[in-house]
Amino acid sequence: MGAPVGIVMGSDSDWPVMRQAAEALQEFGVPFEADVVSAHRMPAEMIEYGTHAASRGLQVIIAGAGGAAHLPGMLASVTPLPVIGVPVPLKYLDGMDSLLSIVQMPAGVPVATVAVGGARNAGLLAVRILAAADPALRERMEEFQANLKAQAYAKGERLRAEARELGSLS
Amino acid sequence: MGAPVGIVMGSDSDWPVMRQAAEALQEFGVPFEADVVSAHRMPAEMIEYGTHAASRGLQVIIAGAGGAAHLPGMLASVTPLPVIGVPVPLKYLDGMDSLLSIVQMPAGVPVATVAVGGARNAGLLAVRILAAADPALRERMEEFQANLKAQAYAKGERLRAEARELGSLS
Amino acid sequence: MGAPVGIVMGSDSDWPVMRQAAEALQEFGVPFEADVVSAHRMPAEMIEYGTHAASRGLQVIIAGAGGAAHLPGMLASVTPLPVIGVPVPLKYLDGMDSLLSIVQMPAGVPVATVAVGGARNAGLLAVRILAAADPALRERMEEFQANLKAQAYAKGERLRAEARELGSLS
Amino acid sequence: MGAPVGIVMGSDSDWPVMRQAAEALQEFGVPFEADVVSAHRMPAEMIEYGTHAASRGLQVIIAGAGGAAHLPGMLASVTPLPVIGVPVPLKYLDGMDSLLSIVQMPAGVPVATVAVGGARNAGLLAVRILAAADPALRERMEEFQANLKAQAYAKGERLRAEARELGSLS
Amino acid sequence: MGAPVGIVMGSDSDWPVMRQAAEALQEFGVPFEADVVSAHRMPAEMIEYGTHAASRGLQVIIAGAGGAAHLPGMLASVTPLPVIGVPVPLKYLDGMDSLLSIVQMPAGVPVATVAVGGARNAGLLAVRILAAADPALRERMEEFQANLKAQAYAKGERLRAEARELGSLS
Amino acid sequence: MGAPVGIVMGSDSDWPVMRQAAEALQEFGVPFEADVVSAHRMPAEMIEYGTHAASRGLQVIIAGAGGAAHLPGMLASVTPLPVIGVPVPLKYLDGMDSLLSIVQMPAGVPVATVAVGGARNAGLLAVRILAAADPALRERMEEFQANLKAQAYAKGERLRAEARELGSLS
Amino acid sequence: MGAPVGIVMGSDSDWPVMRQAAEALQEFGVPFEADVVSAHRMPAEMIEYGTHAASRGLQVIIAGAGGAAHLPGMLASVTPLPVIGVPVPLKYLDGMDSLLSIVQMPAGVPVATVAVGGARNAGLLAVRILAAADPALRERMEEFQANLKAQAYAKGERLRAEARELGSLS
Amino acid sequence: MGAPVGIVMGSDSDWPVMRQAAEALQEFGVPFEADVVSAHRMPAEMIEYGTHAASRGLQVIIAGAGGAAHLPGMLASVTPLPVIGVPVPLKYLDGMDSLLSIVQMPAGVPVATVAVGGARNAGLLAVRILAAADPALRERMEEFQANLKAQAYAKGERLRAEARELGSLS
Repeated sequence: MGAPVGIVMGSDSDWPVMRQAAEALQEFGVPFEADVVSAHRMPAEMIEYGTHAASRGLQVIIAGAGGAAHLPGMLASVTPLPVIGVPVPLKYLDGMDSLLSIVQMPAGVPVATVAVGGARNAGLLAVRILAAADPALRERMEEFQANLKAQAYAKGERLRAEARELGSLS
Repeated sequence: MGAPVGIVMGSDSDWPVMRQAAEALQEFGVPFEADVVSAHRMPAEMIEYGTHAASRGLQVIIAGAGGAAHLPGMLASVTPLPVIGVPVPLKYLDGMDSLLSIVQMPAGVPVATVAVGGARNAGLLAVRILAAADPALRERMEEFQANLKAQAYAKGERLRAEARELGSLS
Repeated sequence: MGAPVGIVMGSDSDWPVMRQAAEALQEFGVPFEADVVSAHRMPAEMIEYGTHAASRGLQVIIAGAGGAAHLPGMLASVTPLPVIGVPVPLKYLDGMDSLLSIVQMPAGVPVATVAVGGARNAGLLAVRILAAADPALRERMEEFQANLKAQAYAKGERLRAEARELGSLS
Repeated sequence: MGAPVGIVMGSDSDWPVMRQAAEALQEFGVPFEADVVSAHRMPAEMIEYGTHAASRGLQVIIAGAGGAAHLPGMLASVTPLPVIGVPVPLKYLDGMDSLLSIVQMPAGVPVATVAVGGARNAGLLAVRILAAADPALRERMEEFQANLKAQAYAKGERLRAEARELGSLS
Repeated sequence: MGAPVGIVMGSDSDWPVMRQAAEALQEFGVPFEADVVSAHRMPAEMIEYGTHAASRGLQVIIAGAGGAAHLPGMLASVTPLPVIGVPVPLKYLDGMDSLLSIVQMPAGVPVATVAVGGARNAGLLAVRILAAADPALRERMEEFQANLKAQAYAKGERLRAEARELGSLS
Repeated sequence: MGAPVGIVMGSDSDWPVMRQAAEALQEFGVPFEADVVSAHRMPAEMIEYGTHAASRGLQVIIAGAGGAAHLPGMLASVTPLPVIGVPVPLKYLDGMDSLLSIVQMPAGVPVATVAVGGARNAGLLAVRILAAADPALRERMEEFQANLKAQAYAKGERLRAEARELGSLS
Repeated sequence: MGAPVGIVMGSDSDWPVMRQAAEALQEFGVPFEADVVSAHRMPAEMIEYGTHAASRGLQVIIAGAGGAAHLPGMLASVTPLPVIGVPVPLKYLDGMDSLLSIVQMPAGVPVATVAVGGARNAGLLAVRILAAADPALRERMEEFQANLKAQAYAKGERLRAEARELGSLS
Repeated sequence: MGAPVGIVMGSDSDWPVMRQAAEALQEFGVPFEADVVSAHRMPAEMIEYGTHAASRGLQVIIAGAGGAAHLPGMLASVTPLPVIGVPVPLKYLDGMDSLLSIVQMPAGVPVATVAVGGARNAGLLAVRILAAADPALRERMEEFQANLKAQAYAKGERLRAEARELGSLS
């Protein structure tokens, strides 16, 4: 059967941002597919992609787009799957246009929106969604979270030392 | 043959705003059709509408939408016709989300965007577009513009009088 | 066993917005619990709620908050479950503060954010997440989407008639 | 007879942005003229340009401007032709000032606004407007749109391969 | 000779805001004229107004406009007089569009911009400008400022009393 | 000796917002004074107020202002005391102007800024500052915080009941 | 007698922006003085500067400041002279904080605000204000404006040539 | 006994900004500690840190965070101490998200917010708070403020010279 997560974006220029979603999935051993599915340049194929996503075995879709970012919302309108939207920042406006175009969906058609440029979190959210029905995956998420803490603690260690040194000069 | 202008919107709750486009067309005697064509609730029909718009005889599409407003841009992606987008303001954010979702289209797929809530101007823009190849209609537009001036001048008349009175009290 | 969805909010003043999430779940027959769990007024209990959410049988958490809206992100930091954040608009700033406080989470801890005041979509997103592993629920979601289309079509019917009448006056 | 499209801008410093409109027209074989017509530095000439645009044979005007961007709106007030406005971003504010100054026109005088820096789309919109009365040009627009799709599909090809490779490392 | 201050606005709907400029001038006994001079509805007359303002004896122009507010900047481009711009707030966007359209003028053509809806300050600024060459008027401005202080002090009196009462309950 | 907290504002029209600071202090039995001290209408008195605040026995100043809100920052520049700034929202812009005018102080002169309209928190922050050197007051703050929790818990009680009822209908 | 224009700023780091005001004055042969007068670092001297500005012979004050930019408004509160405010952009927020802190002055105390970073226009506005009572200076302003037009026209010349070349390739 | 000021941040990547708070404290000889205490990566430890801060002898907490910046507000909810929040700007949105996430706290739980990136002022605000009960420290703050003035005056000296030279060329 196919991968449970599909990562799509409007243009391959979004890939440097969107591959962070792929890498997060990879860290959890979650198979995924990635593709360019442009709402504006190949609308029929985009509708097609969304319409057959569930029957092809996908369980979550991650869609990144910038500016008038229509891909996540359009996919959400043709699939019953949860769709995660990643606002990709463009050259101007710092991604505020992308964010509002993705998050402000009308009642009836939700898109699970993450931060501007937050593709890594899109991957992690997909893992959490899959883990809702997969105890082993949830355990890995808990380990991941414990790990985040350990790393943050280690960073604190170095900072405490540096601050002590700085403080001792006063 | 059918009407040259199609007015579409995501929901009939947009009609109080969008009917101002209809009324502007009416003033110029330009036939139009109006319909609910929701990008998010009936995506296949929306694609259908856009795909056949030109062959049905439409020459301009006016599309209004609010929030994550995808209708104008999606229609523009499936028709070679000029698409005019009207940002409909919702309860929050004063239409800034609607505006950015409509105007910030990627290179390749333009939407002719008007002001937040500016449906009347969408109608007038459609008239100007049709008038580009219709000298009689262009003449009516010129008369309309002359009329705007006359009205503004009349308003100035009243204001000058009121200001003189106010000034005479000083 | 307990309900699969927990709806929490920082204050009962958020309930008029958040009950739309509850009603959406109700329409799908998905059991839920609702509670006031304030990040700022009862932080220990909030941490507690998040920490035990998964072991109590919850599969998705919906958290609404306004202003410096910390509840969704804090819960996401102590649970491996997917957390859906609803930006509740306050008296000023139209919910822009709530939106940014919820969506702009750092890498590692995602929150699935919906529109300002978009609690209904939070409920529907929870259904989609649960449906990823529940074919019967997914089918109900597909029916719901078909229904949205039918309603939109019916609204178009009325609008087409009104527009024809308007057009016939021109 | 003269070119059907006039591209004007407030300063030659806008040319690096605005020449993308020219290039789009060139791709479609649509003749155009380009000029500096500053609303603020040569207002009488600007009014002159707009007033005679239609009688000189222009059918569409594309006007780019930045900051307090008055050129598109002022031209629209003196010509019955459709005017397309391009918000040129300046050093600060990311073009938000340019966008609002162009798009928020009062009822009566529409400007067809495109994205911040979106001069290429201004050119394509002009083509669509001309194509409304020119079947051969419309056909070229349809070919152009088919081409956009083909390019997007090819980009997807490369991305799918890269993603498979990335996925195989997991 | 004519009045030294001209108050103009794009529409008489701006008068409820703009008459506060008139009233401020009246308080200082400075004669003024007021008129509707729309940049978009009567551009030629607007250019005319600005071009002859100085020779008619005007010394300062106050111009109010909303949305894509072009009137102050356009007048500034055809007169050597100081032009004061008043951003009139419209139904949406709280006057932010009006403010940016007026204040963000390109180098070469300044507009002296006051607060959103700040017509009273426009009148007072005109008085300050005229007073730069009129010692008697400057003296009246100094009296006005002393008066502002006295009023603020009196308000403080009442507040101190109320606060003492409130404090005595603690 | 005088009250340890001074509450000042630019106009008595700010009092409906600012009295919430007074009421918070009252709840903690902390004496205070309140006055109108306008940066713009009585600058010399404002400088005076700040300059002598510490010697008069004040330990914290709470200053509210709206729009171009200069009072908190100006006071901070003439006193070594901590100054708390309250952005008072005006008719337009939802207090965003007030917030930025208060919080964006240059390095060297800090203002402790609270939320738009957040005068109650200004009072509570003053209590926390005084409590830093007053164990009894700190204890009262801890009781206050425990109380907040109890109230939030009680609200949750009612909400849980209502949600159970709602849930039982599904 | 002293110079008629005083240019002040909160810090010498504002000089690269503010010297453009000085250069504009220089082009018109208008004498000026420049100084660092910080509202926040030397408030008493700042009040002093403003209080004696008129009696020292200044006729216009140009004040630049960034962030919580209080200098222009504070000076305006202690002088009857017209004060021109220049919003200096800081590292973050693109000068939006500076703009709002300067322009949103309360009724009674106007500041003539120019564009973000628009110091050159501040100089030109000072010239216009002085020219209101100085026919020779006004004539120089009219020559300057004629010159702006000539330059813009010359730029158009070059652009027309380049566009013709570009067009001939199509 | 321990240091009176604790400086904490969500990640050591915030240290380049936050060390300016440490340096300010150092200049005043105020001991401090610094640590990484992430609200999202180590929530239990963060709660722990806040809960015991007062009993460990801390009197003020300075907390820096970016994006959905929850650290300052969460600490404020578990300590009765004054908490100073520093909005750390991230790659996008210029710190506006950080600012709103920190400053817009609900009634009951104040955070003393400083400017975007304003860590130096956070240190100085902590000094002011400690100085409220420490006359010697307050005196140092007054010396510091006198020093700021002297520096600003010296900068003015250089600027006056440069401006004279520039002026003499006119």
